[in-house]
Amino acid sequence: MNTEKILLAHGSGGKLTHRLIREVFLKEFGNELLEELGDSAIFPVAEGKLAYTTDSYVVDPIFFPGGDIGRLSVCGTVNDLAMSGAKPLYLSASFIIEEGFGLTELKTIVSSMKKAAEEAGIKVVCGDTKVVPKGGVDKIFITTSGIGLIPSGTEISPRRIMVGDEIIINGTIGDHEIAILSQREGLEFSSKIQSDVAPLNHLVASMLEVAGNEIHALRDPTRGGLATTLNEFVHNAEFGIKIYEDKIPITDGVRGVCELLGLDPLYVANEGKLVAVVSQNSRQKVFPCLKKNTLGLNARVIGEVIPEPKGMVLLVTRIGGTRIVDMLTGEQLPRIC
Amino acid sequence: MNTEKILLAHGSGGKLTHRLIREVFLKEFGNELLEELGDSAIFPVAEGKLAYTTDSYVVDPIFFPGGDIGRLSVCGTVNDLAMSGAKPLYLSASFIIEEGFGLTELKTIVSSMKKAAEEAGIKVVCGDTKVVPKGGVDKIFITTSGIGLIPSGTEISPRRIMVGDEIIINGTIGDHEIAILSQREGLEFSSKIQSDVAPLNHLVASMLEVAGNEIHALRDPTRGGLATTLNEFVHNAEFGIKIYEDKIPITDGVRGVCELLGLDPLYVANEGKLVAVVSQNSRQKVFPCLKKNTLGLNARVIGEVIPEPKGMVLLVTRIGGTRIVDMLTGEQLPRIC
Repeated sequence: MNTEKILLAHGSGGKLTHRLIREVFLKEFGNELLEELGDSAIFPVAEGKLAYTTDSYVVDPIFFPGGDIGRLSVCGTVNDLAMSGAKPLYLSASFIIEEGFGLTELKTIVSSMKKAAEEAGIKVVCGDTKVVPKGGVDKIFITTSGIGLIPSGTEISPRRIMVGDEIIINGTIGDHEIAILSQREGLEFSSKIQSDVAPLNHLVASMLEVAGNEIHALRDPTRGGLATTLNEFVHNAEFGIKIYEDKIPITDGVRGVCELLGLDPLYVANEGKLVAVVSQNSRQKVFPCLKKNTLGLNARVIGEVIPEPKGMVLLVTRIGGTRIVDMLTGEQLPRIC
Repeated sequence: MNTEKILLAHGSGGKLTHRLIREVFLKEFGNELLEELGDSAIFPVAEGKLAYTTDSYVVDPIFFPGGDIGRLSVCGTVNDLAMSGAKPLYLSASFIIEEGFGLTELKTIVSSMKKAAEEAGIKVVCGDTKVVPKGGVDKIFITTSGIGLIPSGTEISPRRIMVGDEIIINGTIGDHEIAILSQREGLEFSSKIQSDVAPLNHLVASMLEVAGNEIHALRDPTRGGLATTLNEFVHNAEFGIKIYEDKIPITDGVRGVCELLGLDPLYVANEGKLVAVVSQNSRQKVFPCLKKNTLGLNARVIGEVIPEPKGMVLLVTRIGGTRIVDMLTGEQLPRIC
């Protein structure tokens, strides 16, 4: 077991920084753009539309069932690009590391990022490392940004949502946050709950291929969960959304932990889920391609876009009542992503 | 005085997050791309070459003479783009904030970012906010990434450096790190030392306009200072670099603090400086344009590219001796950027 630790000098810009870059980052991410080690990565682009996004990842614990902070930091940004209809191309990765953090753990995280980047088909082309004295940061934070190419003619936007559209989710809700929570709280009975963290770009590409612009809007229900994503869609809009509790896929494990802890699964975060708003007649096109992908096996139509009440999300409960689903208010669990 | 604090709920993705985005980030950065609030910013590009870069900023103190973490986080990334010869276009900004951080301080930082972005002519088009429980991060860290357009025909790269080229710096060295250090250590006699943090892209654009591809390489001597930048140029190269101690601009204040604390100014960080390696005969073209810009008033030719010894940086000292200038080894001051 290598017990080498990250030192302040690893972030100094000097010899140890260059060694860390060569022996950890270039070793895993190595590609012709990153290897230039210039102030910027430089690449040609064709005329077109680009998507650009960023997220910081501060998840605690950094290793959790189904993933780690490295996998999360790649998939999260890849998914934000995919939700714009973009094909992910290039990723930046910036590390803030606590002095004394294990070099072995860092290598494991970087290796996990490499694997996720390969799954998604994205290249890590630029990065940065800062080391902060002990106590200045809790273990490791990673910020990624990504650039993707939006295929000509693709236009995915909440503005395209129309009354009558159907709401599809590609699988069970709540798995990521409940996996983090179970690990953090040592809930042993729920040890089988795994984070759903996964890159969704190939799934989105296949949906776009069969249904094209009949896919009106896409969004990944991360922080704030499904409820918040649907509320973002209806915000200031000339329509509402109605969903059906009994159609929303959820595992018994996640439901159990939510009941035990008094959490509403509609507000619990996902990292491998997408909500698609599609035109009324495109279900037949989209579903076969969802079901062909392991990430879409449990896909369901969970509701539809309604003319009234405007700007609201309604939930038809299991027993047939209807209630308003508001955006998340107040606190949620910190450091879930 | 507004004493409102940042709460965990500001990073939850729910109502308070949306309020923070509207009232702080959109208020300052507002532009049509950011205002979409989609998962990604979307913009058209023409066929060409893009530059892409990222850096995390963890500077302590967050407010220092001559700037703050906000200005630094914009200028640092703008400068990395400029050093590739790129015109900076778009910036991402991701914030990791400690629970309890002052809302007023956050607004001051964001406002400072906006001002720096305006100076540079770059738009903040996407971002993220995470709030970490008290003790998980020291006050605030910012990670920016940037995209720039490299004008057709521009090729700035250390690979273009040739024997006989001249080494130019646009002003005095060490100001940024010594300003941080003085503030941190309460060195009152040095209270006039201000960070040089500034966007260099307009200066670079004017140099490229007059000298074009006679500018072979550009780099900003940040962490690790001038010595490290020059060593990066000669790494694995078929040439060496010779610089002259008495030609390197440095203020009496910075020299004094360096002598007092036993620091070598060659290794001390800058945030508004560039090192340009230019062809032997282009000095006459470049200097007038440097001197026209306040950021280039103290520009000097500090050395030249020599055939031997390959891969080494030599310093001719004030008293006429010659010594090897190695890359920074061991520790440097933490959290200077």
